[in-house]
Amino acid sequence: MNKNINIAIIGLGQIGCYLYNELVKKNKEIEIKTGKKIKIVGISAKNKNKKRKFNINKKIFSSNPFDIINNRKIDILFECIGLPDGISKKIVEKAIVNKIHVITPNKSLIAKHGDYLAKLAEDNNVNLEFEASVAGGVPILKTIKEGLVTNKIKKIYGILNGTTNYILTEMENSNESFQIVLKKAQARGYAEPSNPKLDLNGFDAYSKVKILSALAFDNKISKHNALMEGIENIELKDIKIAKQLNLRIKLLGISEIINNRLFEAVHPCLVGNDTYIGNVNGVMNAIIINGKPIGESILQGEGAGPGPTSSALLSDLISIVRNDVKKPFGISYKNRKNIKYFDNKDYSNSLYLRFEVNDKPGVLSSITNTFAKYKISIKRIIQTPDKINNKATIVIITHKTTEINIKKCLSIFKKNKNIIKKPTLIRLYNYN
Amino acid sequence: MNKNINIAIIGLGQIGCYLYNELVKKNKEIEIKTGKKIKIVGISAKNKNKKRKFNINKKIFSSNPFDIINNRKIDILFECIGLPDGISKKIVEKAIVNKIHVITPNKSLIAKHGDYLAKLAEDNNVNLEFEASVAGGVPILKTIKEGLVTNKIKKIYGILNGTTNYILTEMENSNESFQIVLKKAQARGYAEPSNPKLDLNGFDAYSKVKILSALAFDNKISKHNALMEGIENIELKDIKIAKQLNLRIKLLGISEIINNRLFEAVHPCLVGNDTYIGNVNGVMNAIIINGKPIGESILQGEGAGPGPTSSALLSDLISIVRNDVKKPFGISYKNRKNIKYFDNKDYSNSLYLRFEVNDKPGVLSSITNTFAKYKISIKRIIQTPDKINNKATIVIITHKTTEINIKKCLSIFKKNKNIIKKPTLIRLYNYN
Repeated sequence: MNKNINIAIIGLGQIGCYLYNELVKKNKEIEIKTGKKIKIVGISAKNKNKKRKFNINKKIFSSNPFDIINNRKIDILFECIGLPDGISKKIVEKAIVNKIHVITPNKSLIAKHGDYLAKLAEDNNVNLEFEASVAGGVPILKTIKEGLVTNKIKKIYGILNGTTNYILTEMENSNESFQIVLKKAQARGYAEPSNPKLDLNGFDAYSKVKILSALAFDNKISKHNALMEGIENIELKDIKIAKQLNLRIKLLGISEIINNRLFEAVHPCLVGNDTYIGNVNGVMNAIIINGKPIGESILQGEGAGPGPTSSALLSDLISIVRNDVKKPFGISYKNRKNIKYFDNKDYSNSLYLRFEVNDKPGVLSSITNTFAKYKISIKRIIQTPDKINNKATIVIITHKTTEINIKKCLSIFKKNKNIIKKPTLIRLYNYN
Repeated sequence: MNKNINIAIIGLGQIGCYLYNELVKKNKEIEIKTGKKIKIVGISAKNKNKKRKFNINKKIFSSNPFDIINNRKIDILFECIGLPDGISKKIVEKAIVNKIHVITPNKSLIAKHGDYLAKLAEDNNVNLEFEASVAGGVPILKTIKEGLVTNKIKKIYGILNGTTNYILTEMENSNESFQIVLKKAQARGYAEPSNPKLDLNGFDAYSKVKILSALAFDNKISKHNALMEGIENIELKDIKIAKQLNLRIKLLGISEIINNRLFEAVHPCLVGNDTYIGNVNGVMNAIIINGKPIGESILQGEGAGPGPTSSALLSDLISIVRNDVKKPFGISYKNRKNIKYFDNKDYSNSLYLRFEVNDKPGVLSSITNTFAKYKISIKRIIQTPDKINNKATIVIITHKTTEINIKKCLSIFKKNKNIIKKPTLIRLYNYN
């Protein structure tokens, strides 16, 4: 690589702007650490004159990113738009074909088109790096690709979304409802003001699971419809009952090899409030890796915000400037596996089910009879009457049962007119 | 680097043997991950015929390591003898001068001669890698050098020695004395059977602190006599009293910039039993990094045993095979700083002091008067009589005070004939 490195940043939202400022500020430090001079020669966003947190040099601005990619000499491009397809994909494609290294925090793009783009990068002998796409505050992707490279990983799981972890923590601490706490999260910049859906419904964590399992198991990115549930249906009531049971609700992303098959999932879990994962609170992310010979290793760090994201983007930059070209997923495209999928139907857990029912004789027994029919044994029942409204809340904790069984039960409960709304289901994780 | 990589392992103790076996077993995997074929062409140890856990190929054995370094074509050498000077240093020097890349888990060598050897490696354009010297189960050095490379780190601290953490945990869990638990640790292979001193007196953690702070602050390895205390004086009594106070004793290694000066220390600390660090138990290591913009990041993993160590050694191997030559400490020797040292005398903490005294009138007041003289205010006193022997245990928790103050107090206590033995001092960490 030349002594002078030309850089472009496409997308000047919260992350792009923070990155721009960091690059300007740390210019000298980067030169000391790499022996190369970096220079931002192109920036692009929809709107040149939008009010931004940091002043940008408008002389290098172009509202057309392809103008920058095609007409200026660029060595490394940051894609900071963040769409799973469309312009984000086109920019990355075009840059790679033009022999420009690409760095992106765009998890949805990598989870969807990562295999294709990685092959394109390999074929064009450039880097495609995406450390910032998962848990910015800790170098989890480098850790898998390099630090733990010869370990046989069996399982990788954890808290992958800072927004939902903040909401669940804050509901418990403040005793406030999901809706109120969501507004708080938005006000603090932890949740998207306009559309927080992709955090709340688990999709953000889902993309990260796809990326992590591709790396951990040297696998192609799975196309499987993995189990995905968010936290939208968690009520303060559930958090309070969990507390009574010395449990805590966490949205976990899970990737695991079960019987030589790949299992991936994102769903709320009840975990012990004395466990490590039960005590990772606020916007923190935590990832647990089970491997051989390392045993259990944990990485924990801030998961949300432009600071940790920029930290990861800059580490990718320095890694590219310091080293030769590397494979985006650690190993060559042709050596990556196609592991068969574990059937979600066989996924098995103890379950927490909360029923809101009419307080009539026979309601509880109609529920327990359904469980008995599917041979699901019950570990615990907590019934709380709401005398004034003639209603009751019934929480049932079951022994381990499979997804197929619980799905059948739920379809029967749906027909039960005394069950007022769809029961809230939370899986107990690592619980016997 | 050539397509075929020749490897030598010098030292065939627990780690050397485990590594040898891993290299043989993972030969094919390494070829897939790097595109290069590795071959072990030389191994060396004092005794060819010693009974070892893994079978070694005796055809490539030489009892003289220099015979291997000088007469065989070696690309990468593993130094697994582990001495801070002598033969370990000579082997590494000779290998580097012969343009051989060196990988070592030898923390005492790096802490003592790391600057000299790193410069030698730079001058000879080869790598010197030592990821395995600190917390084998997590890639902490790579994380600082690469993953968090542009962060401004203010502090790095944690549990750096698995042996002592196992002993402290096991004393609490089993209610057994230091001596009994130490024997248990030796039987399980967590502590050296012949000479566990370097773990117990804090020296092992001390070497790791020196390495971590050199990396975290882009500093030369400090030559300062940092504060170093081990766990040899911790008694079951202290662990029980800590428990009553909802505290737990942990041996922490600390490196921090205080008022633009470098502070380094290793000593037992009382930490809250509801804190993260208070719940890192058994042989686990945990390192907490405070940086900007990442905030707080944590890495936790197994710290003892040949498995995690080999994992780190192999990651260094693959990193060397995959990439160009890198600087051992991330940046060039000439750019590393010489930060001035913080004066240990000004280090300030709340203190736990346990006195064993003759149960006579006036003893407590003579102790508290001494504290008053040095303006050390007392937060709490717990006096437990031992009527049968006419003795008592007095535990005093102080408010924050400096090392110089407490040193003066201790010298006065030394002259007090009613204080039967030297008081046990444990600093309360992050405690106001």
